[in-house]
Amino acid sequence: MKTAFRSAICATLAIFSRSSLNPTHHSHSPILFHRNRRAALFPAKPSLFTSMASSDAPLSPTIHVLEKQFEEFRHQLDDSGSLRDRIRSVSIEIESATRLMHSSLMLVHQSRPLPEVLEKATGQIDALRGLFSKLAEIMRECPGQYYRYHGDWRSETQAVVSVLAFMHYLETESLLLHAEAEEKLGLNPSEFGLDTEDYLTGICFMSNDLPRYVVNRVTAGDYDCPRKVLAFLTDLHAAFRMLNLRNDFLRKKFDGMKYDLRKVEEVHYDVKIRGLATDAESKGDGEKS
Amino acid sequence: MKTAFRSAICATLAIFSRSSLNPTHHSHSPILFHRNRRAALFPAKPSLFTSMASSDAPLSPTIHVLEKQFEEFRHQLDDSGSLRDRIRSVSIEIESATRLMHSSLMLVHQSRPLPEVLEKATGQIDALRGLFSKLAEIMRECPGQYYRYHGDWRSETQAVVSVLAFMHYLETESLLLHAEAEEKLGLNPSEFGLDTEDYLTGICFMSNDLPRYVVNRVTAGDYDCPRKVLAFLTDLHAAFRMLNLRNDFLRKKFDGMKYDLRKVEEVHYDVKIRGLATDAESKGDGEKS
Amino acid sequence: MKTAFRSAICATLAIFSRSSLNPTHHSHSPILFHRNRRAALFPAKPSLFTSMASSDAPLSPTIHVLEKQFEEFRHQLDDSGSLRDRIRSVSIEIESATRLMHSSLMLVHQSRPLPEVLEKATGQIDALRGLFSKLAEIMRECPGQYYRYHGDWRSETQAVVSVLAFMHYLETESLLLHAEAEEKLGLNPSEFGLDTEDYLTGICFMSNDLPRYVVNRVTAGDYDCPRKVLAFLTDLHAAFRMLNLRNDFLRKKFDGMKYDLRKVEEVHYDVKIRGLATDAESKGDGEKS
Amino acid sequence: MKTAFRSAICATLAIFSRSSLNPTHHSHSPILFHRNRRAALFPAKPSLFTSMASSDAPLSPTIHVLEKQFEEFRHQLDDSGSLRDRIRSVSIEIESATRLMHSSLMLVHQSRPLPEVLEKATGQIDALRGLFSKLAEIMRECPGQYYRYHGDWRSETQAVVSVLAFMHYLETESLLLHAEAEEKLGLNPSEFGLDTEDYLTGICFMSNDLPRYVVNRVTAGDYDCPRKVLAFLTDLHAAFRMLNLRNDFLRKKFDGMKYDLRKVEEVHYDVKIRGLATDAESKGDGEKS
Repeated sequence: MKTAFRSAICATLAIFSRSSLNPTHHSHSPILFHRNRRAALFPAKPSLFTSMASSDAPLSPTIHVLEKQFEEFRHQLDDSGSLRDRIRSVSIEIESATRLMHSSLMLVHQSRPLPEVLEKATGQIDALRGLFSKLAEIMRECPGQYYRYHGDWRSETQAVVSVLAFMHYLETESLLLHAEAEEKLGLNPSEFGLDTEDYLTGICFMSNDLPRYVVNRVTAGDYDCPRKVLAFLTDLHAAFRMLNLRNDFLRKKFDGMKYDLRKVEEVHYDVKIRGLATDAESKGDGEKS
Repeated sequence: MKTAFRSAICATLAIFSRSSLNPTHHSHSPILFHRNRRAALFPAKPSLFTSMASSDAPLSPTIHVLEKQFEEFRHQLDDSGSLRDRIRSVSIEIESATRLMHSSLMLVHQSRPLPEVLEKATGQIDALRGLFSKLAEIMRECPGQYYRYHGDWRSETQAVVSVLAFMHYLETESLLLHAEAEEKLGLNPSEFGLDTEDYLTGICFMSNDLPRYVVNRVTAGDYDCPRKVLAFLTDLHAAFRMLNLRNDFLRKKFDGMKYDLRKVEEVHYDVKIRGLATDAESKGDGEKS
Repeated sequence: MKTAFRSAICATLAIFSRSSLNPTHHSHSPILFHRNRRAALFPAKPSLFTSMASSDAPLSPTIHVLEKQFEEFRHQLDDSGSLRDRIRSVSIEIESATRLMHSSLMLVHQSRPLPEVLEKATGQIDALRGLFSKLAEIMRECPGQYYRYHGDWRSETQAVVSVLAFMHYLETESLLLHAEAEEKLGLNPSEFGLDTEDYLTGICFMSNDLPRYVVNRVTAGDYDCPRKVLAFLTDLHAAFRMLNLRNDFLRKKFDGMKYDLRKVEEVHYDVKIRGLATDAESKGDGEKS
Repeated sequence: MKTAFRSAICATLAIFSRSSLNPTHHSHSPILFHRNRRAALFPAKPSLFTSMASSDAPLSPTIHVLEKQFEEFRHQLDDSGSLRDRIRSVSIEIESATRLMHSSLMLVHQSRPLPEVLEKATGQIDALRGLFSKLAEIMRECPGQYYRYHGDWRSETQAVVSVLAFMHYLETESLLLHAEAEEKLGLNPSEFGLDTEDYLTGICFMSNDLPRYVVNRVTAGDYDCPRKVLAFLTDLHAAFRMLNLRNDFLRKKFDGMKYDLRKVEEVHYDVKIRGLATDAESKGDGEKS
């Protein structure tokens, strides 16, 4: 059996010589350090392993190998645990910045002048940029683990995209592209990019704001808004239909976009049937015919 | 606006020059190819984008950029979708191989001779090795995405660990180490390793088989087994207690180990109180020294 | 458009000339009859179709075709509805007969003499035979639709199998085979057989009664029972492991059998460790060694 | 007991001589083949059945019969499992073809010219026809089991009906009849027909598209559309009211149709009250007479 353990230990040590993409092994070098540092303390500290302590025999080799391995796991789990805590605290900041932006964008529904609506939100972009560079920095410590911790910033990032895309629509009446979103957030796709599905989900969230936007614009007397938003949303919906979405979260969100589209169509309908869109009409009809 | 789109396109193209750890960008080179190939067909095919296409005016740049972006997304999603399908089909094979191994290991509960118990199970290890090298191969296509698809082989791998660890205990009366598990599966930790938490979860599953094992060994007249298993499980439980487990799946599994321990203690108690184990004891100590 | 409708009507009528395995068409001949009988009444009854009645124009051909089709659907749905009602009333009788049998079988747990335990249950078998022949008769009216209505007798049949299999074990200490179950129920597999998965599920249910049976037999001083039941259940469990069960209802039921097995092992363990199985012991050990 | 087993074996073998409508028995002939082929191997391979095999005595007849029976079940379950897999892969293709058709039909909401709207969708019908003939072919392998696997193509088929019925309404302003649907899909009701409830459910889904259609037609200036759709939907709703629907899925879907009707009535009202429809009215009456 001794041989069995020797080979085990060899195998264990063998690992330390190689660097590793696999996160569970990645943080080995520091851990190896811990291991050695602690190894010195071993005799000092009473063994956790009681069952055999009860016999007068010295600890069997098993115990040492076992203890070493779990010692190492402890450091790995502590490391990834604290990493996760750091990521979460950044995510929380991202979320509150986003909430700030969103609530100031909501002024658009009281048809405040656009510059005023966008001012506060725009002011937050630098903050977001800083927070995402923090995330990128943290991830730099554990290459290849973007998707290990992805869940910890996923929904926050989707909310960010939705806010940025809504701002972008107000400014340009066009869709914020994936690359533009990465640009705004100062993301370097080669090291920490914006996940495509997060981008797409964010865009779906954005579309949920459009029916309310159209209703309030019309209330404020802007009768051409529905036609424009309808054109935008129709194209967006068509673009999404190009994708083969699996039956997952994103698909559900996309299915929701259909209701936004329908609602905007109904507002457009109200405006048209009352002949309120007269000026737009000609333009609109032009487009329709 | 033109500038906005030009910059957008630049940003988009810029990406293609860099290789990328970020999966959503990783599969660019093939996609870029698609993109161009399709670009040629564009004029030919009627645009999906209707609201504006319906005007006699030429498609606005927006539409082209929009369509291009989603065209690309479509290929990304299709690629990762088919990747996922391939992973899943391997996972299914892993699962059935594991079920085979487990059911032949269960012969131990009818106290069949150990060689016979281990024979079939051992025979499957090569199959597992082959299946995991398939997984590693698939993952080689998308470096840095181990954890993107991890969920698709996670539980199957935990079951594998539990079976291997039980076999290993039967053979050596000691714990299968993480490194030994990787060795048995022919995993190269530097490219596709065994996730630590999967290893630990698998070990917890293995401990669930021990009470039943002890009960049946005693039934078969092996009165020394409870003491040995108790010593093993006590050390294992102590080792797990070294870890700061968050309130997650692994913690729940570990909490279950407590019941296995209690059950084994009760069997050991039954044997001791009936004086069935006395002879064994000395033998046992002998073994330890 | 007239032509469109003519072709439609032709297509509709064309169906009636062919007999059909497809249940939705199967009951055509009777329905055709209804259709004609009712057709006579048509002029008499005011049209349900109001929208056009508001115009002074005579009913358009559309309406007639539409009404004819739904007239036919009405009969189809009524037919399959009443069929379902008849099936359900038989299922209810099957269930109560089974409950009767089960509760008299439960006398075995008070270790009443076997003949007394089996008497009442055996008496019910003829009743079951009669009820299943009623089911077969009903199904004879709609060949090829066994699985359309299967859900309406499925669980009741599984309960029947479980009771018959338990009786059979008490009588023969062996498993009731699928073919034996069909025989007992007077089923003719070529026209109305016992679905394999229902049989297997019923067997799983039966195994749930065995731990309690063993406990009560031992209480009554029958120390050899655990060994025999354990042998039986071990073989049964091994047999089920031969099957590749999908992750469905049957798989869940089978997973439950593991606990029955464990429980019986523990009772066997209690008996062995107390040296109560002495007589059996030799036989038992013989088998074990 | 021997006699019990002999009769069991006889019963078991008896089955093989008869062909069977019951799927669980249908695939016997191939299985019988396996059985024999394997029977040859039996002595060679170590029995899974251990409790008794472990005694030096030869396997009891029980074990052989038991093993044979489960061997057979294994083949039955594997057969129906792979059949199900084949069906599902076809269903998936049906679903994606339908999604394609639906999304091109949605162009009607941007009031693109009808031929363009229908072109792509019509192009897919041949594909559907091919896929349904694949299903029919698969079902031909197991006569009388249409309803055993029905659930695996049910919802996809309902979606197909809804798309075909919407196309048909756009083309003919009338309801696609059940027989017409089967004709379009090249179904032969005598061997693989369109289930009536699937047809009816599909029609309910279709009606969900009508309010949106009416809204967008009016927006595009077609003020006569609401009246026509209202007449169609009123008749359809009346036709459904002829049916005694049980409290099931179909009934829920039908209840939804009420809201579509109400919505279309409201649009019709909007148009009438603004005197936008007056001219159309007379035209409408003209059309009817």
